Amino acid sequence: MPLRSVAPPSFADDSSAPDGSASTLYRQIAGLYEQAIVSGSLAPGMRLPSVRELCQRHGVSLTTALQVWRHLEERGYAEARERVGYFVRRPAQAALLPAVREPELHEPLQPDPRLFAGINERISVFLEKARRAGPGVLDLGSAMPAPSLFDAAALNRLAIGLLREQPDVLVYGPSAPTTHVEFQQAMARHALGFGLSLAPDHIGATHGNSEAVNLALDAVAEPGDVIAVESPTFFGILQAIEVRGLRALEIPCSPRTGISLEALELAARNEPRLKAVVVVPHLQMPLGSVMPDSHKERLVALCTEHGLALIEDDIYREFVESPQPLRPAKAWDRPGTEGQVIYCASLSKSFAPGLRQGWMSAGRWHARVQMLKFARTRNMQSWSQLLAARSVGSPAYERHLRRMRVQLREQREAAARAIARYFPPGTRLSLPPGGISLWMELPPGLSSTRLYDQALARGIRVAPGPMFSNTGRYERFLRMSCGMPFTEQVETGYRTLGELLSQQLTPASGRPSAGKRA
Amino acid sequence: MPLRSVAPPSFADDSSAPDGSASTLYRQIAGLYEQAIVSGSLAPGMRLPSVRELCQRHGVSLTTALQVWRHLEERGYAEARERVGYFVRRPAQAALLPAVREPELHEPLQPDPRLFAGINERISVFLEKARRAGPGVLDLGSAMPAPSLFDAAALNRLAIGLLREQPDVLVYGPSAPTTHVEFQQAMARHALGFGLSLAPDHIGATHGNSEAVNLALDAVAEPGDVIAVESPTFFGILQAIEVRGLRALEIPCSPRTGISLEALELAARNEPRLKAVVVVPHLQMPLGSVMPDSHKERLVALCTEHGLALIEDDIYREFVESPQPLRPAKAWDRPGTEGQVIYCASLSKSFAPGLRQGWMSAGRWHARVQMLKFARTRNMQSWSQLLAARSVGSPAYERHLRRMRVQLREQREAAARAIARYFPPGTRLSLPPGGISLWMELPPGLSSTRLYDQALARGIRVAPGPMFSNTGRYERFLRMSCGMPFTEQVETGYRTLGELLSQQLTPASGRPSAGKRA
Repeated sequence: MPLRSVAPPSFADDSSAPDGSASTLYRQIAGLYEQAIVSGSLAPGMRLPSVRELCQRHGVSLTTALQVWRHLEERGYAEARERVGYFVRRPAQAALLPAVREPELHEPLQPDPRLFAGINERISVFLEKARRAGPGVLDLGSAMPAPSLFDAAALNRLAIGLLREQPDVLVYGPSAPTTHVEFQQAMARHALGFGLSLAPDHIGATHGNSEAVNLALDAVAEPGDVIAVESPTFFGILQAIEVRGLRALEIPCSPRTGISLEALELAARNEPRLKAVVVVPHLQMPLGSVMPDSHKERLVALCTEHGLALIEDDIYREFVESPQPLRPAKAWDRPGTEGQVIYCASLSKSFAPGLRQGWMSAGRWHARVQMLKFARTRNMQSWSQLLAARSVGSPAYERHLRRMRVQLREQREAAARAIARYFPPGTRLSLPPGGISLWMELPPGLSSTRLYDQALARGIRVAPGPMFSNTGRYERFLRMSCGMPFTEQVETGYRTLGELLSQQLTPASGRPSAGKRA
Repeated sequence: MPLRSVAPPSFADDSSAPDGSASTLYRQIAGLYEQAIVSGSLAPGMRLPSVRELCQRHGVSLTTALQVWRHLEERGYAEARERVGYFVRRPAQAALLPAVREPELHEPLQPDPRLFAGINERISVFLEKARRAGPGVLDLGSAMPAPSLFDAAALNRLAIGLLREQPDVLVYGPSAPTTHVEFQQAMARHALGFGLSLAPDHIGATHGNSEAVNLALDAVAEPGDVIAVESPTFFGILQAIEVRGLRALEIPCSPRTGISLEALELAARNEPRLKAVVVVPHLQMPLGSVMPDSHKERLVALCTEHGLALIEDDIYREFVESPQPLRPAKAWDRPGTEGQVIYCASLSKSFAPGLRQGWMSAGRWHARVQMLKFARTRNMQSWSQLLAARSVGSPAYERHLRRMRVQLREQREAAARAIARYFPPGTRLSLPPGGISLWMELPPGLSSTRLYDQALARGIRVAPGPMFSNTGRYERFLRMSCGMPFTEQVETGYRTLGELLSQQLTPASGRPSAGKRA
């Protein structure tokens, strides 16, 4: 959609000019408001500026300002209400409301090279299609727990308490260092609870886990360098690698024990530009594997030996169903060194998605990460850091997590049952020991890319296998989200997906056959 | 400071082993807690986990858990309170409290090449010294209004109202598109108020103005490309350029009319890799110049003609004292094109520093910016966007701005009087028509870099001229903040700075002479 920018109106003060010469001026100003009304930024019923305000805003005479509103009145965009002022008129037809996105949905997406250069094109196309489909879609693709799984009431009480206790919290500009000391202390205590000892002043707040991983990549590699990733892996990591001119090296990953250490060692010996490894040790995305402690130990040793940064993305740790907390690989960082592991985590998945509160501890790259962070997004909200600091690790937080794990298990199991019921025979799936998604393999002949398009046209979003790799290896794979309660609507969604897949197996038919419906 | 990481404790379940074999295990676990106590993440008086919790956390037997606390007790780090549990003991001496930063202050800062590679080293050293000095310093350097200049009470009322109206606002994970529609509409209306017509769906929320400018650079240039900047310019822009392997080309800038269009045109003709120009049209940082409309028009035409992106950083617009709102250069974006100007703004300076709410409208680079944003920091808080959307442009917001402009003017004038009174004769300064800082030229023989170090040692932070350029041209220049009320402490700060500068003029003396004191 092209930018609807307009001709620059020359708002020179016309007060000294004869009013006749201002005839194009009032049209120009009226044009601005007309456009705002058509685009929806001024909604029907909204009050327009007074004539006096209009004079001030645009430096025009009273006469010109009056002409602006009269012109808009004549064209049906404004109406005067006596002694009150001018208002945006309700349009005669709904066509004037903000653009409806549906018609774009079926248009072929022509990737603009300017748009995607240096960004992973395949992933971008999937994301762009989803964006165009708009927010009305049933999202069975995103790995995010539904709002109902969080304890919003407790968080809001805490938030209101904080606003009363620290009335300046929203207007206080946090000065250097960029991270709030209370947040650093709280995250250090939190980490201790799962066996990881961190220096508080080496903990940095970030915009979600995503900024943390991006900063880690910025700190350890430069364009042309190689980054080892798990295969399949979270598409965000592939994007982040490609955006900065790095190359991703996909290392096979086991659904039970995570990244293949043998393959990684081979890569470390043979790829001189290999600079770092990115792993999700707990509930690897999308496989759901949980790395055994012995693997973590070997992985850290391997990275230390070869001088590779180990970027540990630990965003799903708290979703693992385990009798005792799992220790991150960073717990094996060799003592006496400054730390080879860059630990990245976030409270977005487990505590409050709306805060976007991530954090990291970058080992020997700490000072560099801090400087890069400052150059890029500067300081962080105290607000969000304090809410996190005062919640994480509290008894209420632990209760919330226990409840959430139970609910997610039920949702995973319900989704697995629906897949067993509606998806074509031969679909393979293994239940991970926790988390918010399922990864499955479809029978031969099926395409998750095709399913993505077909499902989106029916108002359902999924995450097709090819989003999780550059190798083209996962065309028959699919990630389904189990983040939302398994409602009737979700069940209907799974049934529709099953039907679409069955149609793929009967190429002649555009609709499900009578036999399939029975 | 090296990362205080410890040996990875092997927390294998020891329940089946004879307790004697767990002797190193309890020491390892105790070591974790000891470290947390020493580093301050577990503060004196804080409750330690119960013995049962300790068993669960680390998967050890009751005996081992008890040994952990007894060991810490013996070493003086923990104390048992009968029937309540174990607590962190108050240390006998204050030396065990979190590290005091003062001793580091006078240590020479050895730039670690790993730390600064690709980041502007000179700027980084200044920032790092300030960081080491800690938060207790009188900050006369940062361009940020004091919290007391904002209407925190009104904002807090709005915030509490929003939490009650939308109880899910903090736990709702915003889905694509990354920007809230209400925020887009509100910023489009806001822009209309200063003569700029923007399509709401081309408005993107960012983490402050800083992320907006960074995304703009990502979108339009690649490593090796050249970016034209004003000279002197805000150091954040120089950092952002250097971080991504771009080269800054400094274009002379007038304290009255802004960037020299003649010099820029020359550069556009002669520098084939020139891709973009970054300007601050209103209250240029640090000069305070306000670009006349005729210059804006020519600048946009020049960029359009030469295919350069015009990155417009409009963060100080609302601080200009002007009878009518100033239009950004983007208002002259040529109609019919997709837009050559990337408009960047923020509410951090004018409305609520603690929200870090920026925004942008990227013209023909809109889709690319959106994708880069998603790859890097993903979605934004709805919370902060909604608070901004509901405030900006309201009568209360406009009243706040009027009050703030008056207060800032008083503060600028008080600072100018103090400079006239305390600084060496020959100091030159022109008062800008608004804003939160003053830029001045010191008499020959003086160095603002030396002043920076001397002032920091006396607990005062300033912003020396060399931070604002790579050319070394501004050694005798200084930016002073006028963001905070001109208290007695601030006045004393200015007097101290004046004394330090006078000492620079009398090289033999390390102290102010008796004559100078009189």
